[in-house]
Amino acid sequence: MSQPARRTRLTPRERKEQLLDHGVRLLGTRQLDELSIDLLAEEAGISRGLLYHYFGGKHDFHVAVVERAAREIFEATAPTGDGDALTQMLESMRVYVRYVRANHTGYASLVRAARGGSDDLRGVYERARGDLTDRIFAAAGAGALAELGITDTTASRRLARAWASMAEDAVLDWVLDDAGLSEDQLITSLTSALWAGLTSLPRQA
Amino acid sequence: MSQPARRTRLTPRERKEQLLDHGVRLLGTRQLDELSIDLLAEEAGISRGLLYHYFGGKHDFHVAVVERAAREIFEATAPTGDGDALTQMLESMRVYVRYVRANHTGYASLVRAARGGSDDLRGVYERARGDLTDRIFAAAGAGALAELGITDTTASRRLARAWASMAEDAVLDWVLDDAGLSEDQLITSLTSALWAGLTSLPRQA
Repeated sequence: MSQPARRTRLTPRERKEQLLDHGVRLLGTRQLDELSIDLLAEEAGISRGLLYHYFGGKHDFHVAVVERAAREIFEATAPTGDGDALTQMLESMRVYVRYVRANHTGYASLVRAARGGSDDLRGVYERARGDLTDRIFAAAGAGALAELGITDTTASRRLARAWASMAEDAVLDWVLDDAGLSEDQLITSLTSALWAGLTSLPRQA
Repeated sequence: MSQPARRTRLTPRERKEQLLDHGVRLLGTRQLDELSIDLLAEEAGISRGLLYHYFGGKHDFHVAVVERAAREIFEATAPTGDGDALTQMLESMRVYVRYVRANHTGYASLVRAARGGSDDLRGVYERARGDLTDRIFAAAGAGALAELGITDTTASRRLARAWASMAEDAVLDWVLDDAGLSEDQLITSLTSALWAGLTSLPRQA
């Protein structure tokens, strides 16, 4: 008869998730390319062999960490459902700015690696970013968007994705040196840019 | 007595510029990482040794090509000096969009490499991009900007640089698939985003 599993035993999936959490934490203060399986093994007190079993190699590990970090940002910035589309957007931006401030080194490196990296790394990142900006449309709903003069079209969703690059650059810069801008002023200028871009698109494109 | 230089003989600097032109042309249809000194040697019908003499190695060659391509874009998009700040901006954007359309493969690869690449590659690219967006302020002049409700501050110039990432992504996407947007509509939505971001910044930041 097999032994019953101990209560504290994690499933392989849970264990992998826990290790990825650890990897994302390490990324808070390190560049993505400094993040190795050896480092994770050392920090997590676990054998390299097991980590290679979970993650394959450094590249797959990086893809998994980027995927995990992106999902973390996605979950952290979930709209609360309170207020109109603009209020929800401002709230999500506020959480995002604070995330970048708390994780500047790793996030800057993640953005750089994801923008310039291999096709799969960029793919993971761009999908996650697309989910983030698509949410602007989903959360607002067609009625609320129409009131703001915005139509949910392919062109609108694409413009919002492109705007995410602007937001990433602006927030990363701002955290290093605020150039006299308050957090509110930064967020206002970025959301104004997005809204103006979206409202100036043709209604049917 | 030394021989007089033949009229057609180029100075080493001119020769290097000519080779760089050739490198930028090759980038029109190739990824930056496919661009090697061997390929340039073959295409230009010149010895590898001489090319190594000019460019050192692949990395320095890439930095030089990115620098050169960025300068080309900068020169091509120079404001004509006709019309107000907004008209000049629209004109520069139009030239930029056409440049990206004519050089999509290489430009996409250049942007990716420059955003995710080594510190010096990113440095060269970011300086060039900064020159481009700084020009918005220089060309308009303080008076014209004030009429538009924009102040020339560190925060404004930074926001314009961040916006350049949005413009790059949006234009690169649009060239691949226009999603029903005309060139004018694309340019209008991008400039609207920039203008709205800038005018919503505090006057003194």
